[in-house]
Amino acid sequence: MNTTPRTFVAVPADSHFPIRNLPYGVFRPIMGGPPRVGVAIGESVLDLAVLAEAGLLDGRYLSGVGVFRRASLNALMALGRPAWREARELVTRLLSADEPRLRDNQALRDAALVPQASVEMLLPAEVGDYTDFYSSREHATNVGVMFRGPDAALQPNWLHLPVGYHGRASSLVPGGVDVRRPCGQTRPDDGAPPLFGPSRQMDFELEIGAFIGPGNTLGEPIGIDRAEEHIFGLVLVNDWSARDIQKWEYVPLGPFLGKSFATSVSPWVVTLDALEPFRCAAPVQDPPPLPYLRTSGPQGIDLCLEVWLQGGRMAAPERITATNARHLYWSLAQQVAHHTVNGCNLRTGDLLASGTISGPTRESRGSLLELAWRGAEPFELPGGERRTFLEDGDRVTMTGWCQGDGFRVGFGELSARVLPAHQAVP
Amino acid sequence: MNTTPRTFVAVPADSHFPIRNLPYGVFRPIMGGPPRVGVAIGESVLDLAVLAEAGLLDGRYLSGVGVFRRASLNALMALGRPAWREARELVTRLLSADEPRLRDNQALRDAALVPQASVEMLLPAEVGDYTDFYSSREHATNVGVMFRGPDAALQPNWLHLPVGYHGRASSLVPGGVDVRRPCGQTRPDDGAPPLFGPSRQMDFELEIGAFIGPGNTLGEPIGIDRAEEHIFGLVLVNDWSARDIQKWEYVPLGPFLGKSFATSVSPWVVTLDALEPFRCAAPVQDPPPLPYLRTSGPQGIDLCLEVWLQGGRMAAPERITATNARHLYWSLAQQVAHHTVNGCNLRTGDLLASGTISGPTRESRGSLLELAWRGAEPFELPGGERRTFLEDGDRVTMTGWCQGDGFRVGFGELSARVLPAHQAVP
Repeated sequence: MNTTPRTFVAVPADSHFPIRNLPYGVFRPIMGGPPRVGVAIGESVLDLAVLAEAGLLDGRYLSGVGVFRRASLNALMALGRPAWREARELVTRLLSADEPRLRDNQALRDAALVPQASVEMLLPAEVGDYTDFYSSREHATNVGVMFRGPDAALQPNWLHLPVGYHGRASSLVPGGVDVRRPCGQTRPDDGAPPLFGPSRQMDFELEIGAFIGPGNTLGEPIGIDRAEEHIFGLVLVNDWSARDIQKWEYVPLGPFLGKSFATSVSPWVVTLDALEPFRCAAPVQDPPPLPYLRTSGPQGIDLCLEVWLQGGRMAAPERITATNARHLYWSLAQQVAHHTVNGCNLRTGDLLASGTISGPTRESRGSLLELAWRGAEPFELPGGERRTFLEDGDRVTMTGWCQGDGFRVGFGELSARVLPAHQAVP
Repeated sequence: MNTTPRTFVAVPADSHFPIRNLPYGVFRPIMGGPPRVGVAIGESVLDLAVLAEAGLLDGRYLSGVGVFRRASLNALMALGRPAWREARELVTRLLSADEPRLRDNQALRDAALVPQASVEMLLPAEVGDYTDFYSSREHATNVGVMFRGPDAALQPNWLHLPVGYHGRASSLVPGGVDVRRPCGQTRPDDGAPPLFGPSRQMDFELEIGAFIGPGNTLGEPIGIDRAEEHIFGLVLVNDWSARDIQKWEYVPLGPFLGKSFATSVSPWVVTLDALEPFRCAAPVQDPPPLPYLRTSGPQGIDLCLEVWLQGGRMAAPERITATNARHLYWSLAQQVAHHTVNGCNLRTGDLLASGTISGPTRESRGSLLELAWRGAEPFELPGGERRTFLEDGDRVTMTGWCQGDGFRVGFGELSARVLPAHQAVP
């Protein structure tokens, strides 16, 4: 890391986007123009379509492939890690303080370095399938204690495999898109018939998600030792949940309408290469998993995660959760290996989310369900407001970063407001 | 129906594809050439790309839209029912015995009417999201009795909403693609650790599936009275299942790897217009559902369904299931209305499958799990073979048709063989 160059672009000290990060996103200028691929640097976006057309992104893997003037990262994701490394090296060099090609070409700088405030960020990928895991032991335990009691908190399978389910791909939305409170069927009184109406238990779930790069052929599993070669990078995910809808519908086939109204994804995809210096030990797995899930080396990522909430009458957002992705019990590689062990094919752009990330303390719980303990322990916000679940007008903002020595490699923010339910029943 | 014209194309008396049907599919000539959209008529495929280029499919909705020289039906599906009706009328006229434009143009007939035996049928749509419902009361009851006993067979929610879950879109395959037995984690002995290996309880599930035409905007539900306007047509679906993998993994988030290794879809999509004469009453719903799920008019479809099995040592396939889609408790319209009532967006090409269709008798059960009652009642096949679950080399063939007076409107066949598991563990 000592050889990481300085950049000529102004990067504030607390920026999530120093030259060591270089996350990818898809953006469109607010003033108009087609979507294209960019990299965040400081408070700017580096337009890779412009750089490629200027001949500055040529290399063994990238020459002539045309992956940057696109409305998604899928074409870049499909190229695989050697191409990603080449792109990272080329961009790092172009942004370096001692490299004149971009630095001293004012016209090119004006075209290629645009303020983040002047662009709209889009969903980074076309997602064929979205999978949501359940990989935080603390979260699974909290939910289990609430619904089944402390003696049966973890289901028998939980310590043997990364439990997951298929999510809804169509309702993935980029950060900034506000989310409407869903209507649905609930049964608040177990002795009475179900009711229809707006959810009264809308919640967030703090997660991270991995985008798949190259996929696998149907019928051909990905061995765990090769699993990370198939991961392009990570994002923050808010897996919005309607707990009352979910509770009534989910037996025996799992979550459906309680989740499928919206899932928010942060716009900047941080590559595994940028996260490499922050790898750390994951929790010890006891019992040891079956051989197809066994790994070596540091499987965790020391990634600080926070959730901030601002109600409609609050002057400023307040931090309500501070946790870390290192708490995740099941690793990214284990998720990929498990997902494909039956021959299921992952495709480029598929999203694998971690499930809610909770830590061991009350302050590190990753959902309101846990923070307010199913409504039993409402918590106080400044100005006297209390929350058990989300209210209309609440803005939920997630953020995450790896802390280096004097710098951060971060994900920026994932933020959206809760809109009131539609009144009319169709 | 009396005004349905005769066609000049030879149609065998027992054909599933008379002029009253005209199902759509996507095909590629075995001799080579790009995929395109066709219609089945008798033992031929009518190449709509050729007809459109000859100027024979012009009309208010279809002129100039270029929906037939495509690798999927999605563009046609997106146009909506007025365009589908126009296409149906145009094709019906062109195939009529008293219409000379195609009949008397030998060169055009040679180009546009090709034997089904000379083409490869592809997956009919690009499926963004695949949803699997659980809409057969008899199936849900059978499974419930087996796993929870007769007193708690149906879960409390089952009679109030069409239970469903998100399936895996990437592993949808067209009929004719053989399916490899999956490996995975199972726990045959509840007192011992889980094991890894090939599934020993591989099963089929007989289902029908609906392809979505025009979708809805995220946040805007589809009212039940408009629901069928969003359905392009139906196919047969074999929702292959690995019961031992499913049993161990599915608590609490539902089926995952026990299903995601493959789901087979029949190649010909039968339109709702072709099925209209076969609408029938669906089972009475008691308790009556909530208003957003209430319908009027005949909600069922009188659609005969069969499953045939041929083991590797059997000289011919044997029918093992005969049932009918009219048994389905929850209708297509109810599935669409429920799926979107929380604002979830359906997209063109999405597939909504019914769940296993079982009838009231033993012979009408739609899965081996039920036919052999979880292995407790193995059944005999000719030649002395017995089955509890599928064996390697077994060919499963599903078929379905609506029986008219002297004709059938059918789905053809959905057939695939079980390939042995890969021996190597990745």
